[in-house]
Amino acid sequence: MPNWLLPENIADVLPSEARKIEELRRLMLDNFRLYGYELVMPPLLEYLESLLTGAGQDTDLRTFKLVDQLSGRMLGLRADMTIQVARIDAHLLNRASVTRLCYAGSVLHTRPSGLHATREPLQIGAEIYGHAGLEADAEIQELALASLALAGFTEVRLDLTHVGVLRAILECDAAAKRDEAQLYLLLRAKDVPGLQALTQDYSPAVRDALLALPNLYGDVEVLKRAREVLPDLPGIAKALAELAALAASAIDRAEVAIDLADLRGYQYESGAMFALYVPGLPNAVARGGRYDHVGEAFGRARPATGFSLDLRELARLLPTAERKHSIRAPWGNAPELKEKIAELRKSGEVVIQSLPGHSNELDEFECDRALVLDDNGSNWILKNLG
Amino acid sequence: MPNWLLPENIADVLPSEARKIEELRRLMLDNFRLYGYELVMPPLLEYLESLLTGAGQDTDLRTFKLVDQLSGRMLGLRADMTIQVARIDAHLLNRASVTRLCYAGSVLHTRPSGLHATREPLQIGAEIYGHAGLEADAEIQELALASLALAGFTEVRLDLTHVGVLRAILECDAAAKRDEAQLYLLLRAKDVPGLQALTQDYSPAVRDALLALPNLYGDVEVLKRAREVLPDLPGIAKALAELAALAASAIDRAEVAIDLADLRGYQYESGAMFALYVPGLPNAVARGGRYDHVGEAFGRARPATGFSLDLRELARLLPTAERKHSIRAPWGNAPELKEKIAELRKSGEVVIQSLPGHSNELDEFECDRALVLDDNGSNWILKNLG
Repeated sequence: MPNWLLPENIADVLPSEARKIEELRRLMLDNFRLYGYELVMPPLLEYLESLLTGAGQDTDLRTFKLVDQLSGRMLGLRADMTIQVARIDAHLLNRASVTRLCYAGSVLHTRPSGLHATREPLQIGAEIYGHAGLEADAEIQELALASLALAGFTEVRLDLTHVGVLRAILECDAAAKRDEAQLYLLLRAKDVPGLQALTQDYSPAVRDALLALPNLYGDVEVLKRAREVLPDLPGIAKALAELAALAASAIDRAEVAIDLADLRGYQYESGAMFALYVPGLPNAVARGGRYDHVGEAFGRARPATGFSLDLRELARLLPTAERKHSIRAPWGNAPELKEKIAELRKSGEVVIQSLPGHSNELDEFECDRALVLDDNGSNWILKNLG
Repeated sequence: MPNWLLPENIADVLPSEARKIEELRRLMLDNFRLYGYELVMPPLLEYLESLLTGAGQDTDLRTFKLVDQLSGRMLGLRADMTIQVARIDAHLLNRASVTRLCYAGSVLHTRPSGLHATREPLQIGAEIYGHAGLEADAEIQELALASLALAGFTEVRLDLTHVGVLRAILECDAAAKRDEAQLYLLLRAKDVPGLQALTQDYSPAVRDALLALPNLYGDVEVLKRAREVLPDLPGIAKALAELAALAASAIDRAEVAIDLADLRGYQYESGAMFALYVPGLPNAVARGGRYDHVGEAFGRARPATGFSLDLRELARLLPTAERKHSIRAPWGNAPELKEKIAELRKSGEVVIQSLPGHSNELDEFECDRALVLDDNGSNWILKNLG
């Protein structure tokens, strides 16, 4: 096997794609900053206990493990940055007030999440700590929608769900509570026969509620139907009211859909959750939600809500950037030439000095002008290339 | 041990530091672009053979290894990006013309290079492929100096050396050639007694030349002395002429020093090499040089020269950024308020909406103004705080 082949689901990013990713990265980070989010950079490697604290089995399986030669302890390569940022909020910053943090960095997965998925997503995201109210969820949702709008996506679908609905139902029945993990999987797959089999011995009210969930998806009208069909529990009423408020705040920016059975990635979520979809990709491009309990494992439970997306996947959906016009200049050390080149670059022009003996065949940059001496041989001027 | 402690020589980057690093990263990448360098993003993980191709034992020891669950093969976490970028030039782009590439990304080291060195440097760099002439070396050196100037360093020392001097000497004596690796180490340490012991059986001319090298350091006058002291070999004459030209091109931007025995990191270098120093740090902040043979292992030898530096280390040397002035706004969904906030953010202002029930205690951002309703309660206006 030639030694320049890369592992499966691992790829180099070449210039035109890299430029798109870099531009998206800056647009989003700059926008986070305008909302008052502070940038942090957690490490790629941590002790495994720290990295997997509060994370589910999914994350454990996706995490590359290796031995630290300095301590002999197990290290993990981060597969997700959310828990790292919660750790920073809990211990390093340790503020009593509301803290808004954002981040952008590579994460690594032992196995791809799909046939063509990369094992090295470039995760970018934003989180609010210290506010339990729905206002924080609304700001995060707005920021996620604004991020996609900045990237140029005009048709966006927002899927909303809420962990509180299922939680409230499970609280009413010890048998159901015991089967929690299995119920999540069956609901996610909308597997009604499976649900019917599993729920046979549950109390009739709980069984009916669980069997109703897979049908509670569609536009915001679903919330009305849910109020009629589901038991009248405070937890359910609160969750449905929160979903209604979040749906209302997004209605002019996205097509809103509700799916009360879709609890994907419920591992550390604790309240409203959302997923964003764009044309051309069946999977969600961004996911967010509330996860109030993650900090607990670090000894400091703080309300928390945030979102993240993979910049590499998002960039792939966008058209290739146009080749950047640039100026070809000759090689030379004459001070006038050097000055002229410095001046052009200062004004934002890309100026490529030809190295002696090489013609200019450039991929990303297209030289549409050349820097040449005028007819008197005294001034450097720009000449259009045809 | 609490589960939020990080491994030795691994650290989170907190907001004020992260902002500095991000700004430096953008300044340097934007400047590379103005010179016509195209951005690439090689992966964090590769098959070990590919990652270590052409690299020396140092790199092997510094590389974390792990098993790929998909292929069962050994993977390495990159400890350096130079060879990855050479692979991209050789195989993915595969152009006949001159190619200029740049990159910025984390690398990981099993052991720190010094007591306080990070094991996760953020490497940024630029490379030219396809031009063997000194013009490429001069452009890379200029770009490295420009990068430090952009970062705000005004006092920079440029140390120059050339692998060609030692190579030419070794070619004259089979015994010396055999001891190459050992000679490099002794010369680097300027260990004259060690050199005297090792070179006893060499031909007198070679022995004298090797013993002269440790004293050939100082300002550019050293080159004159070297021409007198070292044997009159074409390889040496060429190397000294190249150093003289590179020194001359940098003389108005840096204090130039020559050190013909300092061949640190000669592993893949093949010509002129440089190191940049700034006040406050004994180690070089940037290193560069020619490494024409790296592509050979990928089946395509191309002349190559480049430089790189660690953004995290560089940012530590710079003063903390001032806290960014920002505007505090109340929470609310009133369209006029939302519009006003959007307008202020569009003009570049950081506007932080207070979440209900929380006072504003912010670290990176300092709210010096507040968005409030005017006395008539009809317009949102900015009011100075403090």
